[in-house]
Amino acid sequence: MTERGSRSGRGGEWAIVVHGGAGPIGEGRDETLRSGCAEAAARGAAVLESGGSAIDAVCAAVEHLEDVPDFNAGRGSVLNRAGEIEVDAGLMTSDLAIGAVAAVPWLLHPIRLARLVLEDGRHVLLAGEGALAFARRYGIEPEPRERMVTPRAEARHAARLARVPTGSESSEPGDTVGACALDLRGGLAAATSTGGTPGKRPGRVGDSPLAGAGFWVDARHGAASATGTGEAIIRVLASRQAIALLEVGHPVGTAAQGAVDAIGRPGRGEGGIIVLDRSGGIGLASSSQAMPWASIVGGRGASGVLRRDSL
Amino acid sequence: MTERGSRSGRGGEWAIVVHGGAGPIGEGRDETLRSGCAEAAARGAAVLESGGSAIDAVCAAVEHLEDVPDFNAGRGSVLNRAGEIEVDAGLMTSDLAIGAVAAVPWLLHPIRLARLVLEDGRHVLLAGEGALAFARRYGIEPEPRERMVTPRAEARHAARLARVPTGSESSEPGDTVGACALDLRGGLAAATSTGGTPGKRPGRVGDSPLAGAGFWVDARHGAASATGTGEAIIRVLASRQAIALLEVGHPVGTAAQGAVDAIGRPGRGEGGIIVLDRSGGIGLASSSQAMPWASIVGGRGASGVLRRDSL
Repeated sequence: MTERGSRSGRGGEWAIVVHGGAGPIGEGRDETLRSGCAEAAARGAAVLESGGSAIDAVCAAVEHLEDVPDFNAGRGSVLNRAGEIEVDAGLMTSDLAIGAVAAVPWLLHPIRLARLVLEDGRHVLLAGEGALAFARRYGIEPEPRERMVTPRAEARHAARLARVPTGSESSEPGDTVGACALDLRGGLAAATSTGGTPGKRPGRVGDSPLAGAGFWVDARHGAASATGTGEAIIRVLASRQAIALLEVGHPVGTAAQGAVDAIGRPGRGEGGIIVLDRSGGIGLASSSQAMPWASIVGGRGASGVLRRDSL
Repeated sequence: MTERGSRSGRGGEWAIVVHGGAGPIGEGRDETLRSGCAEAAARGAAVLESGGSAIDAVCAAVEHLEDVPDFNAGRGSVLNRAGEIEVDAGLMTSDLAIGAVAAVPWLLHPIRLARLVLEDGRHVLLAGEGALAFARRYGIEPEPRERMVTPRAEARHAARLARVPTGSESSEPGDTVGACALDLRGGLAAATSTGGTPGKRPGRVGDSPLAGAGFWVDARHGAASATGTGEAIIRVLASRQAIALLEVGHPVGTAAQGAVDAIGRPGRGEGGIIVLDRSGGIGLASSSQAMPWASIVGGRGASGVLRRDSL
């Protein structure tokens, strides 16, 4: 639980780090979320260990977290104000390839669609119905409601409706997922996926699909994936900020903390971030109640739940 | 035509700078586009001169350019692959307020909707049909086709269809609009609005509504608005990059040129940017064939078309 600082890695080593979102974690969910992150990291590690690419590794990790119903991404996504699911996801590699999708209704694996946008190469970001039309070219269809909405998401939505009939609720973040990886050839990638903020307006786009905000990769320095109050993360371009701190020589743990400090200034919001540097060093920081995470560097794994009271 | 470098201004002075997009400009359009920019700058200047805010000034300027059918924003927007108009716009102030809308069908004044998103305050970016539902709360409806599609946009679309039946066309940028302003109280704002890339996929979101890419403001340093190949601008966060160059002490003209150099590296794209610093200094740069622009600093106006062959 104290892995906030950096851990150094040797050159030529592979590494993956995963987060399961920064936010309030209800009673007894720590172990579920920690183990979900550990399994996601293991899936990414299997790719990297066999010589696969960083982008394949982050996609494998994030797809797993989209499948696990306990995270707010893919299955398990929160419901928006209209009681619907709309998802956001984005990814980037160290050769500046970016693919992202935003406010797409009822997608189980938005990270797959983001990757198709990246591979298509014509655009960087597709939103809404247009993104869905693009998905259909690849045989990807919206999922039926019963495959995506969990009892927890339904209960959260019902509670919101009961509590705040006027729509003046707070922006409670939670359980966005993300991953950063370094492959044996020195390639870097970052990916982020989310159902967004509970009770968000239809069409709302958070930080997760936005380069610089929810994710950022710089070939010379490292990769980052952020989570938390999306609007605050956009206002400070938190992932870009973390990499800028690496660029001026800060260690990876300081870079993560600096980005979180920027998100958390008064009147903004709260959040967390994972940062991976070029030598496999990992930085974690969060100003939220809790952020589950897991990492595997050259075969050595670690995982936990970063808690505010442990900072 | 040689105003690429910075022009210094005194503290406590107001300033506005406007661009009409970086891209190819057809025969005989220079004067039309230059005078459109000059009128937009004059409308913003009228706000600033009477003590109005930077955000009111950039909105007045951009709304004018959205009305002029010669620019690719609002009326005059290019058609997407499906023959429809979808617009993007975003704005930001020096107190980190951001509002943006993306891929919204048939809006005449997307910058007005972006401002409503900013003033609502709950979210930063709304896309697609959800953004339109939000617009309707304020009585804003999609415009009829005949009020927005110009003969030029129709001809461009027809030519595209005739030329590239397979959809393998290049990403020709063009005629996005933007403005940056400094008000008498030292407030800064930037705003950008566009119809996007001709023949873009439905749902495509370019740089214009994305903080850091199409626009950025930093209270300590300045404001920027970018135009050009949207995907390239996103990959280098061009507006954020220009302000980062101001931050490390570069003059405003060098900051503009540095951002354009980043956009224009091989394999990326082309573009232009306007940068306004805290003392009213203005930097312009473009790697495209031409970028019309206009500025007024403390009552002294200038305007022109920045051409690649003049650089």
